[in-house]
Amino acid sequence: MAAKRNAVTTEAPESSAPGEGTALALDSRLSKRVESVIPKKRHEALKWFGWGYNDSQFYGKDGIICFRGEKYPLGGCELPSFTKWVEKKFDLRVDITKQYPQLPRTYPRPVENAPFLHELKGTTQVDYSAEGIDRLVRCHGQTLNDIYSLWHHKFRRIPDLVVWPRCHDEVVQLVRLAHKHNVMLVPFGGGTSVSGAITCPQNESRMICALDTSQMNRLLWLNRENLTVCFESGIVGQDLERVLRSEGLTVGHEPDSYEFSTLGGWVATRASGMKKNVYGNIEDLVVRVRMVTPSGTLERECSAPRVSCGPDFNHVILGSEGTLGVITEVVLKVRPLPSVRRYGSLAFPNFEQGVLFMREVARRRCQPASVRLMDNEQFMFGQALKPEKSWWASVVDAMKQRYVTSWKGIDLNQICAATLLFEGDLKDVQRQEALIYEIAEKFQGFPAGGQNGERGYILTFVIAYIRDFGLHQGIVAESFETSVPWDRCSLLCRSVKQRVVSECSKRSINYYTISCRVTQTYDAGACIYFYFGFRSTDVADPVELFEAIEHSARDEILSCGGSLSHHHGVGKIRSHWYRNAVTETGSSLYSAAKRHLDPKNIFALGNLLPLEEDHPTAEASPPPTTSSTPPKAKL
Amino acid sequence: MAAKRNAVTTEAPESSAPGEGTALALDSRLSKRVESVIPKKRHEALKWFGWGYNDSQFYGKDGIICFRGEKYPLGGCELPSFTKWVEKKFDLRVDITKQYPQLPRTYPRPVENAPFLHELKGTTQVDYSAEGIDRLVRCHGQTLNDIYSLWHHKFRRIPDLVVWPRCHDEVVQLVRLAHKHNVMLVPFGGGTSVSGAITCPQNESRMICALDTSQMNRLLWLNRENLTVCFESGIVGQDLERVLRSEGLTVGHEPDSYEFSTLGGWVATRASGMKKNVYGNIEDLVVRVRMVTPSGTLERECSAPRVSCGPDFNHVILGSEGTLGVITEVVLKVRPLPSVRRYGSLAFPNFEQGVLFMREVARRRCQPASVRLMDNEQFMFGQALKPEKSWWASVVDAMKQRYVTSWKGIDLNQICAATLLFEGDLKDVQRQEALIYEIAEKFQGFPAGGQNGERGYILTFVIAYIRDFGLHQGIVAESFETSVPWDRCSLLCRSVKQRVVSECSKRSINYYTISCRVTQTYDAGACIYFYFGFRSTDVADPVELFEAIEHSARDEILSCGGSLSHHHGVGKIRSHWYRNAVTETGSSLYSAAKRHLDPKNIFALGNLLPLEEDHPTAEASPPPTTSSTPPKAKL
Repeated sequence: MAAKRNAVTTEAPESSAPGEGTALALDSRLSKRVESVIPKKRHEALKWFGWGYNDSQFYGKDGIICFRGEKYPLGGCELPSFTKWVEKKFDLRVDITKQYPQLPRTYPRPVENAPFLHELKGTTQVDYSAEGIDRLVRCHGQTLNDIYSLWHHKFRRIPDLVVWPRCHDEVVQLVRLAHKHNVMLVPFGGGTSVSGAITCPQNESRMICALDTSQMNRLLWLNRENLTVCFESGIVGQDLERVLRSEGLTVGHEPDSYEFSTLGGWVATRASGMKKNVYGNIEDLVVRVRMVTPSGTLERECSAPRVSCGPDFNHVILGSEGTLGVITEVVLKVRPLPSVRRYGSLAFPNFEQGVLFMREVARRRCQPASVRLMDNEQFMFGQALKPEKSWWASVVDAMKQRYVTSWKGIDLNQICAATLLFEGDLKDVQRQEALIYEIAEKFQGFPAGGQNGERGYILTFVIAYIRDFGLHQGIVAESFETSVPWDRCSLLCRSVKQRVVSECSKRSINYYTISCRVTQTYDAGACIYFYFGFRSTDVADPVELFEAIEHSARDEILSCGGSLSHHHGVGKIRSHWYRNAVTETGSSLYSAAKRHLDPKNIFALGNLLPLEEDHPTAEASPPPTTSSTPPKAKL
Repeated sequence: MAAKRNAVTTEAPESSAPGEGTALALDSRLSKRVESVIPKKRHEALKWFGWGYNDSQFYGKDGIICFRGEKYPLGGCELPSFTKWVEKKFDLRVDITKQYPQLPRTYPRPVENAPFLHELKGTTQVDYSAEGIDRLVRCHGQTLNDIYSLWHHKFRRIPDLVVWPRCHDEVVQLVRLAHKHNVMLVPFGGGTSVSGAITCPQNESRMICALDTSQMNRLLWLNRENLTVCFESGIVGQDLERVLRSEGLTVGHEPDSYEFSTLGGWVATRASGMKKNVYGNIEDLVVRVRMVTPSGTLERECSAPRVSCGPDFNHVILGSEGTLGVITEVVLKVRPLPSVRRYGSLAFPNFEQGVLFMREVARRRCQPASVRLMDNEQFMFGQALKPEKSWWASVVDAMKQRYVTSWKGIDLNQICAATLLFEGDLKDVQRQEALIYEIAEKFQGFPAGGQNGERGYILTFVIAYIRDFGLHQGIVAESFETSVPWDRCSLLCRSVKQRVVSECSKRSINYYTISCRVTQTYDAGACIYFYFGFRSTDVADPVELFEAIEHSARDEILSCGGSLSHHHGVGKIRSHWYRNAVTETGSSLYSAAKRHLDPKNIFALGNLLPLEEDHPTAEASPPPTTSSTPPKAKL
């Protein structure tokens, strides 16, 4: 099959002779600069105080919650059902008098490392800014705490300087300078982290430099024969997909943050996409990756699809969360765009039946591109978000038709739903659909329409805007996730919800919501998302309270056999548990790798291990464990 | 679906409270000892001087090559076609007067570390042996050089002691003792390494202790709901599959060494199995793994199917090649046994068409459990191995029928063949078959019969016995493998063969064979096996000569964009190239990890990095790279 060629289609570089090393991109003239939807001055398009676009948000009008924002199908809609849901759930009326926060009038005084600045300006072409707003919008990610701190002007430490390298070589220069002058670097991609990973450590005394990768977003080459593509790490998900779609291709990686998050961020956090069943998670998509560390560039010298060449250090780069270096270039697999995309939905009499369905689908390995199971609470919430006649109502109609003779057997407070997305060629999709509906029937599930499924997926990107509106109205809400073996799946969902209920009760929180969904399935288990929120109008520090309850929920998750994180990563907010998750030996191995790659700890983000632990002193490393510390025996 | 339970079916252990750690197996009463086909005194069943069972080998009778060995379908067969092929290819008659080598009369005098021995005997229950034969058969793997050294009594250093720990805890004891007394350990599994990985370093002055894992081969638990199983690492492939098959399950990992190689060895070398398209390579199968190092046990604390919890150190254990610690327990995914297994074969007018077919099958992701493409030379060789009417002949018949009107267009010296193995339920297999044959037709391929395919796969395990017979008869032959992006696949095959031809010509080697096959396909490339052999009757050191030519071939592979290894690993014989393959930064990171986990270098196998480089001094580590060494910039 002759490959279609055009301007952006370039051959993979010829490999060099062994020993010389093969750079991922050899000839920058072949590369293509991508016009991003996100400008270099990111606050011109994106909210400085929260999630998403400046022009997109929930707001109240005449007591009704509405959504504005031309970029989303919900834009311009009034949401009476959602309004009622909020009123009932939280005993709260929409307050249209409240103002969103104002930008601070002053910014923390920058720490300046004069020799670094001198050399940066004198010996490099790297663009930079010391403007307050540029620094502020790059001091944080998107945790509740980040946003709350922003609104209340609580950040004591923000980057002292923002730099915008344009390529791998400029990153090499920056890392060299920062290492030489002992300046802290924060690799900053899309700023969507929900683990605190990019939030500036508040006790850092050195100069902090935010390394914004947004100007490193070129398509370096595309190889149609191998179905591989090389991008710079700063490219944003939607830009990446737009460029590839114009070539008839897709990477297919769609985390919920995909509008704003970057390729480099996906690698650094071990991201997972909604359609991983077809396209794989980020670790399945990465063929090669380069990370610039103070001790050199870590990369593999060959693009072979699978190798046995000692420990696979790609898996040290994946999940490094900005603490080991800066990811600069990534070779990814691409796939031809699917000819058919179809949605579907299913309803089940209860969550347990739904989980059994999900398990069976995974066992038979017939997962469509996406299959998500919502519990009853989330199902009700989802339908409330619809402007027109709700999904709920239409599902009830469908059920009534189906169970007309046995209607009493179904408890409307138990019913749950799954949304489905099929991608592929027509035959494949038809076969998948038939199989899925056949399996669903075994678990008392029945089809609830493709339109309902489609709406579920369309809402995905809008849901992220609710958090800020809630916070504004006096509701703190956030999601957290885990992964778990199949045999603990239902138990974990139940136990975590019970734990949250009991934690709320202990604290006299009377108005709250806790729900969950199964968003990903694997051979041996599943990923589960929890959504928790409560009315915080009477609470002094709502975020602190939220975090305390989330902490308890995480303890519950771990004691049910769940993981510390399926795809958000550890960051700072879960570093408390990291050592146990990987054992003492694992965490000391991480520290040893970090000391080796970053001996001065210039990537001092404090992710994975709490800051005081991960680098006891800047340059002296403790001696390796010797015979005085016996190996652990844990059987 | 209710899970079937029986004696060996045990629940996964309940997870402990966070912080306490979850051992992979909690209750040893639930485990099941597996009766292995390989006795503790391995030489009682296996050849001390080469590959496989004592009772299985090629031999000559009345000038005809025959095979004996009840364990294989070829057992008791005369092979006239193979005899003719050898005669023609190497101008060599079968010599039945030659004797196989004799066991040495004496063994190298053991180095004894008295305090270690004293403590081993006084404080542990670990069984051990200092007998010469026990030591000799564990001093090596299966490289040509290993076998040649055995035959010529060339090993100066063999293990000074063999120990047989029975469980994780005993390994912990052994590693602690070895670390304390500075005794070198060689983790020894099935002894099938073809990279020199387990061959004793010949200049080691410390006591060397072979840690034979064969008595650690229990099934610790089986969880039908999660489809996961936990085995001790010493279980041999065929034992593992036999146990699981009795439960209606399979792991499906079938490297060609699977009769003798162990689970721990698969993990340590990043093994790949013939049926990886359905079951995955070893890294896809491993859910959890424990490795005992001098600095503690490295493992992950949870069995969730996929996590984002910092760098994934499972990928440091995978590929560690015995240099970082001893793998003791592994949780693997299992699958229900397929209801249908069917074979097939295809013929193509030439190798390039075959590669295009393989590429298209991978692009459409419709690979059956196995699909292998042989070049013309290998195709001829394969058919020569058949005792009865050859595949070749039947393919020619089929071609004649098909191309009856255009017979002249096909060059019999160009034709090549693919063997196919389908596994699944009947519907799936039928659909796969239809699709595969449809794609084949686009590339001028046509079906050549299921029986031919089946025979190809059956021969797999017998082919490994040819090497020793060849060596005995005056032919040195061995395989080597690589992986490569699709766009370099044909080029690499052609270039490597040309290089071997030219290297042979330079050295006046007139009788030789060089052939290749594509054995695995991936989204972005394929795995290629080369088979090379030459008549060595006039050569002083045939193995040295073979290695020199293989070295050139590897240079050629690398310059064509191929990898250092797809699944055999680096070991000692490819350590020359390791540094370039992972870059200076990668190799120094490996060294840093090694220094941290094994500060006294008791796992001093010299794999990955040549011995003199990987551990400059036993306990002092060099200072980390500082600003005096600039980061590498390679674009």
